Amino acid sequence: MSTRENTLSIFALGGINEIGKNMYVVQYSEEIVIIDCGGKFPDESLLGIDLIIPDITYLEENQEKIRGMIVTHGHEDHIGGIPYFLRKLNVPIYATRFTLGLIELKLEEHRLKGDTKLVQIDSESILELGKMKVSFFKTSHSIPDCLGIVFHTPEGNVVHTGDFKFDLTPANNASSDIHKMAKIGSDGVLALISESTNAERKGLSPSEQMVGNHMDEAFMKAHGKIIVSTFASNVNRIQQVVNAAMLTNRKLALLGRSMVNVVGVAIERGYLTVPEGMLIEARDVDPLPPERVAILCTGSQGEPMAALARLASGSYRDVAIYPDDTVILAASPIPGNEKDVSRIIDNLFKLGARVIYGSGSSTGMHVSGHGYQEDLKLMLTLMKPTYFIPIHGEYRMLHHHQLLAESVGVEKGNTFIIKNGDVVDIENSVARQTRSVPSGDTYVDGMGVGDIGEIVLRDRKQLSEDGMLVIVITISKSDRKIISGPDTITRGFVFVKNSDDLLKEVNRLTKKTVTDLQGENIRQWNVIKQNIKKSVGQYLFTQTKRKPMILPIIIEI
Amino acid sequence: MSTRENTLSIFALGGINEIGKNMYVVQYSEEIVIIDCGGKFPDESLLGIDLIIPDITYLEENQEKIRGMIVTHGHEDHIGGIPYFLRKLNVPIYATRFTLGLIELKLEEHRLKGDTKLVQIDSESILELGKMKVSFFKTSHSIPDCLGIVFHTPEGNVVHTGDFKFDLTPANNASSDIHKMAKIGSDGVLALISESTNAERKGLSPSEQMVGNHMDEAFMKAHGKIIVSTFASNVNRIQQVVNAAMLTNRKLALLGRSMVNVVGVAIERGYLTVPEGMLIEARDVDPLPPERVAILCTGSQGEPMAALARLASGSYRDVAIYPDDTVILAASPIPGNEKDVSRIIDNLFKLGARVIYGSGSSTGMHVSGHGYQEDLKLMLTLMKPTYFIPIHGEYRMLHHHQLLAESVGVEKGNTFIIKNGDVVDIENSVARQTRSVPSGDTYVDGMGVGDIGEIVLRDRKQLSEDGMLVIVITISKSDRKIISGPDTITRGFVFVKNSDDLLKEVNRLTKKTVTDLQGENIRQWNVIKQNIKKSVGQYLFTQTKRKPMILPIIIEI
Repeated sequence: MSTRENTLSIFALGGINEIGKNMYVVQYSEEIVIIDCGGKFPDESLLGIDLIIPDITYLEENQEKIRGMIVTHGHEDHIGGIPYFLRKLNVPIYATRFTLGLIELKLEEHRLKGDTKLVQIDSESILELGKMKVSFFKTSHSIPDCLGIVFHTPEGNVVHTGDFKFDLTPANNASSDIHKMAKIGSDGVLALISESTNAERKGLSPSEQMVGNHMDEAFMKAHGKIIVSTFASNVNRIQQVVNAAMLTNRKLALLGRSMVNVVGVAIERGYLTVPEGMLIEARDVDPLPPERVAILCTGSQGEPMAALARLASGSYRDVAIYPDDTVILAASPIPGNEKDVSRIIDNLFKLGARVIYGSGSSTGMHVSGHGYQEDLKLMLTLMKPTYFIPIHGEYRMLHHHQLLAESVGVEKGNTFIIKNGDVVDIENSVARQTRSVPSGDTYVDGMGVGDIGEIVLRDRKQLSEDGMLVIVITISKSDRKIISGPDTITRGFVFVKNSDDLLKEVNRLTKKTVTDLQGENIRQWNVIKQNIKKSVGQYLFTQTKRKPMILPIIIEI
Repeated sequence: MSTRENTLSIFALGGINEIGKNMYVVQYSEEIVIIDCGGKFPDESLLGIDLIIPDITYLEENQEKIRGMIVTHGHEDHIGGIPYFLRKLNVPIYATRFTLGLIELKLEEHRLKGDTKLVQIDSESILELGKMKVSFFKTSHSIPDCLGIVFHTPEGNVVHTGDFKFDLTPANNASSDIHKMAKIGSDGVLALISESTNAERKGLSPSEQMVGNHMDEAFMKAHGKIIVSTFASNVNRIQQVVNAAMLTNRKLALLGRSMVNVVGVAIERGYLTVPEGMLIEARDVDPLPPERVAILCTGSQGEPMAALARLASGSYRDVAIYPDDTVILAASPIPGNEKDVSRIIDNLFKLGARVIYGSGSSTGMHVSGHGYQEDLKLMLTLMKPTYFIPIHGEYRMLHHHQLLAESVGVEKGNTFIIKNGDVVDIENSVARQTRSVPSGDTYVDGMGVGDIGEIVLRDRKQLSEDGMLVIVITISKSDRKIISGPDTITRGFVFVKNSDDLLKEVNRLTKKTVTDLQGENIRQWNVIKQNIKKSVGQYLFTQTKRKPMILPIIIEI
């Protein structure tokens, strides 16, 4: 895209029509500021893919214009792509103290530490990134130290909310800057970019305090030991678990690598207060009376190798679950994880544990970190934007967010529901969406980044459904007679022991195809291979209703 | 299992620790009665598998004892296995008129009609199956003509609930036999076998009337045409759609094969009343004014080839969705289908349609057909069983159902939470669970039933994640020199164009391995193949962090 002088451009490289891989760009003339660089976990259709990150072609092509990346908070869908980004582009990263802690953990894992300029900011910071002045405001979310961003540009002010809810009784004093938001709105907002995750949910997002109250009650009622599983990054919720343990005079053990790492960062940086002597090692759990112990562990999403799954299957080395223990799932399953989580709950019940799960208002141990409809309307009302761009959501969420915006006074026609790559240009106070930049999914598979495309995935799909059949045949160069074979090897198609007759007929058909074609003096190997595929494929389909991948190999000697 | 004289035995061949493939057995001495024969849809981990049905080894081994199969209702998880069952065992099937209609449709699809004795019963029928007298009672569920079963045996009475809820204001006059149930309970129930699907949900299952009221309101509010998607078998809900169409003077078109078939059966057999002239063909939709048309279609579970998905993607031949049309999803997504359903909702919003979805109490267009905790307690209270066997559910549901039973007076120790195959034997009024019969999952893949096992699935998994690499090498029998190759073919592993160097190194390693081993005078092909796999596998893993299936093929000439 050509640079537009004195034009303010806003677009997403990820995060629209999806939950995940958030990456947004605010550009004024020749200057680019990036917001977030998230990853997204693939669904089952992307066989073998480990992670999806944004396509950053546009940024690579315009790297000299990039003034920096601001990271709103430390969730995977906002920081997961950073290690891959940094291998291609080196730009300064601005984030709060806690967010930086998580980014640093990530860079260490990828052995990338040291090369990048990481700049610590807070909600009072003011950055000068080229012609743009950037200021911030605090938001409440399910991780500490979250920021909303204000871009002060010659064209006007642009606000990016980050992820947020309004929580008037937050845990751990993690309040939003609601007065500052009001001031920003009063000063005038040209465009609001606001997250849409819960735009379908009516009402106001419940307070984290609800979880704290239920946690205290559950701790007071419990007889045996207590195991709480939640997201390691939800430090304010973890503080409430610490408080409940304190209240009931229990020691606390941390299980799972990310729980240990993130709690470590949180304590060290002052986001979590744990009384002296409360923390114990996993091996110290069993010797203590069960009513004196609580455990905080990873695996609330049902991850099969994480601590909770191993506890539930009785395979955690130092700690066992006994009847009368209480297990609290203080997290809702993210869509797609329900089955894995349910399997763990089943296993815990089989061990005789009391299991507290679900999000009912009477015992619920989870509230969303994302604002509901009334939260979103409050943000829109505070900011009073001229233009509105809903982000961070599937289409139906963006659609509902638009209706909410219009209900609180954003003019019809002033909301832009964009796709990743679509650019909203604002010039002389008029916004238009007429052009787009490259965008898309980049697949990470093992060490490969972007080397897996549609063809490889299509092959994997066929292989996964019906397996494959290799047919090898050796033919003489001189007289074109079959020297050896056909031999067949099959995997993932049929259980070979029971399929002798099937494979014999495959060999017969292959031989016949080769001989017939040679009889017709047809010598192109490709044609012969195509014919083998066709005749064998048809035969196998009539016999089995399966379509394995057929790979004829002709060796010419 | 050896037959036990004068013993009443109860067990499940499917339906326990799962939702799906329900199959239960009540046996008294030498006489077996089967209840239901369901299928279950595989999750993503069972690559390429089409359907799971119960392992019926026990029934095959005891076929001379089988007196018949009673089918409680026509849902897939209760009838889906019947065509496969009938290929192995021919037993009379007893079911109500509507259930038989669905079974016959299924047998026609499988070209099995005519060989089986299908016996129509109703809730007043009394069967004499050997020494067991069998009677029935009507239940309310999300499909018409459902039965609960009473087995009158010399040992005592056994009640199997089928699937049920209590709905005091059902649609279409489909009431439960609540007085009959009370009488059965008063006469004495030795054992109750009751479904557990919603044992985790508090309260009473909402009435189908709620859907009818919301449907009427939505029809009255709508301006354009209305598209309702629901399960074809939920005939009582379909009746409410018909009523709403009548109320608002709309014609009704049916889209989707199973909607047409099942509605056909329902009308023909008297379970659905549609006014003369209301039904129109799909091609007649567009010519009519949109406010005079409603559509009933399949695809409420997001099935990609069903009518709703095709409407949402604009690819349905005769019918298009226009802005201002109303689409009603009158079904909740079954766990696992959420993403497909969400994608359709997104597409419908993109077309400008109003979409009504979700199960909120203010607009909800779906209620469950399974009783909640209070329904289950009411059944337990009516039946007052001595012994209780919760069925039809995952472990956590059975567990909660046990707690409910104990809360209404079933003695502790008298509930049997069994696994598929576990047998509860009752003799001289004492119940014990000490033995089990064979049970398990039989996979259907294409035409194959039971021919796919763990090895094939493991291969499919490996192929699906990292693809494969075939290495072919031809070696001379006489001097053991390499005549041709190594040649490599890869699928699903890397994009070949970009991987020249990688594959060159694979060839070099293969050649080296073969030559080295021959130098050491090692001639067993298996050893050579193992070594190729190892060296190439290690190399590829360090380079790509992927583990493709490696298939070395050595041709000896």
